[in-house]
Amino acid sequence: MLNTSNCGLIVIDIQGKLAHKVANSSELIANTRTLILGCQALKLPILWLEQTPDKLGITVKELAQLMPFEQPIAKTTFSGCANHTFMQRLRHTNKCHWLICGIEAHICVYQTASDLLALNFNVVLIDDAISSRSASHKALALQKLQHNGAQLSNIEMCLYELLADSLHPEFRTILQLIK
Amino acid sequence: MLNTSNCGLIVIDIQGKLAHKVANSSELIANTRTLILGCQALKLPILWLEQTPDKLGITVKELAQLMPFEQPIAKTTFSGCANHTFMQRLRHTNKCHWLICGIEAHICVYQTASDLLALNFNVVLIDDAISSRSASHKALALQKLQHNGAQLSNIEMCLYELLADSLHPEFRTILQLIK
Amino acid sequence: MLNTSNCGLIVIDIQGKLAHKVANSSELIANTRTLILGCQALKLPILWLEQTPDKLGITVKELAQLMPFEQPIAKTTFSGCANHTFMQRLRHTNKCHWLICGIEAHICVYQTASDLLALNFNVVLIDDAISSRSASHKALALQKLQHNGAQLSNIEMCLYELLADSLHPEFRTILQLIK
Amino acid sequence: MLNTSNCGLIVIDIQGKLAHKVANSSELIANTRTLILGCQALKLPILWLEQTPDKLGITVKELAQLMPFEQPIAKTTFSGCANHTFMQRLRHTNKCHWLICGIEAHICVYQTASDLLALNFNVVLIDDAISSRSASHKALALQKLQHNGAQLSNIEMCLYELLADSLHPEFRTILQLIK
Repeated sequence: MLNTSNCGLIVIDIQGKLAHKVANSSELIANTRTLILGCQALKLPILWLEQTPDKLGITVKELAQLMPFEQPIAKTTFSGCANHTFMQRLRHTNKCHWLICGIEAHICVYQTASDLLALNFNVVLIDDAISSRSASHKALALQKLQHNGAQLSNIEMCLYELLADSLHPEFRTILQLIK
Repeated sequence: MLNTSNCGLIVIDIQGKLAHKVANSSELIANTRTLILGCQALKLPILWLEQTPDKLGITVKELAQLMPFEQPIAKTTFSGCANHTFMQRLRHTNKCHWLICGIEAHICVYQTASDLLALNFNVVLIDDAISSRSASHKALALQKLQHNGAQLSNIEMCLYELLADSLHPEFRTILQLIK
Repeated sequence: MLNTSNCGLIVIDIQGKLAHKVANSSELIANTRTLILGCQALKLPILWLEQTPDKLGITVKELAQLMPFEQPIAKTTFSGCANHTFMQRLRHTNKCHWLICGIEAHICVYQTASDLLALNFNVVLIDDAISSRSASHKALALQKLQHNGAQLSNIEMCLYELLADSLHPEFRTILQLIK
Repeated sequence: MLNTSNCGLIVIDIQGKLAHKVANSSELIANTRTLILGCQALKLPILWLEQTPDKLGITVKELAQLMPFEQPIAKTTFSGCANHTFMQRLRHTNKCHWLICGIEAHICVYQTASDLLALNFNVVLIDDAISSRSASHKALALQKLQHNGAQLSNIEMCLYELLADSLHPEFRTILQLIK
């Protein structure tokens, strides 16, 4: 089970024009906002990736402005794990469970998640904060990753799992976010 | 395979306003009624949970009135297994297979079932007596739990499995309930 | 892989009024006819079950008349494997792979298949020759059985697997049946 | 993970009238074209099968003309692996991962993939370049093969996995193909 001491969040490539071209783009951005705010309330570390931002554009403002104290990590490889800075920050957090959100499910999300699984991290794919241009590509990617050992979850499910108890001091904060 | 000596039923949080807000609310309540009556005919032990009933309201009358001799167990944690009274009663029954019904699939049902699996109990999720506000949240939760070792079933399937033989003395009682 | 020397067919309870009440009843009967004729062309042994035929009626004529030299096995238990005659005939054939068709997916098909898996037989569920009154009950049963070790197949898929080669002497017979 | 040195492509039976009778026939042919061109850009070996071409017709021109230096392998068995020439060429390439595309999913694709799995090769089924006459037959075949150890992928997913990095010299070639 997830808890607030063993878990972090990775936000992948919600940037530029692509962020607006994926299926259910506006829900993706709104849901990722909720997820980031929820993880911040629970004090989880957040890692934040961008694919060649000089070419594809930076992370959408709605999300970037939530993380003024974090630096995005620019990568050229589709997998975050092939990036030295990313792996260094990831290992520095000392967390073994990683919530993953972002785009595109079947390219950068898939390759990053596969590499994390191969490195024996626990990967939790947040269904309602992941997308691809094609909904069927997303479905295939999530099914394949689950088959290979990833867990599926969604925003409510993982935040309630992290809270565990309605007496948790942040329960009302999370409840407000989700409503 | 399930049989009447190795199996009990857990009813989770079908209470207050939430019981009427989940997807297919009236079927959920009617189906859970059938399941409770079927389990009573087969003399299975029933454990019955409520999430902070002082705030969220008590179990719906249609179900509570079927169990006049049982005491609901109030909890603040989303998982029943984090509650001492629940675990004490569960262990006292000496059963290793637990049919699970109730709401919400992706919160209290999910967390209780996950903890039972981690404790090496056999978990059987009763598909037509489980719901969430969102049908897609329920689907994700059941798929995730099955992936992690839970069995799926439904009311007819599990009651016929418990009966095993059409010569079972309670066969006609169960047949009447299901029709 | 299936081959004509390791494999037999079990036909479960396609009888009485129930045979006409299940979802896609006429396709079920027509498809099972094809499957029986295909298995006969390939000389597979066929076992044939009926649930309390004195009460529920006998196997539908379209199928019974295809098997004039076989005797149906009457059972009271939902699982064929709890029936002594069935198990005796099954073991007598010396086959380890069993194609399974019939009704209802979530009751007698499910319980027979589960018991066969527990006895270490290989179970192959023929999707287009299995039904339940409710299509969702069938879907749940097949998914659960596959999760527990059964293989899924369909009529074309299993007959072509048994043939293996278009030079097989019965290839044209099977091709005619399937068209 | 796939990479350009451990991986090859197998094209199965996209030939004659059948190529035009399968579900989504024109997408299948167009997608397979993209896949072949992508694999050629990445210098993967390609093996190319035909089922009794004297009877069923040869590979469709749109695909055959892309491979002027390859010889199709004619087979009578539904599984390519039962064909000596195919196995010889396959072993000669020294690759352990095989992308598979073609028709029909539940007959020749299924039997070839099953045999490759039994021989301990890694099988990657390219969802958008595989078809059957019936879409439900394809779905069953892919699900069964995944259950038995095959990986699912699609054209974009596998080409990006093979590229790994946007700095790869063929990145722009692949990008043009996919657009």
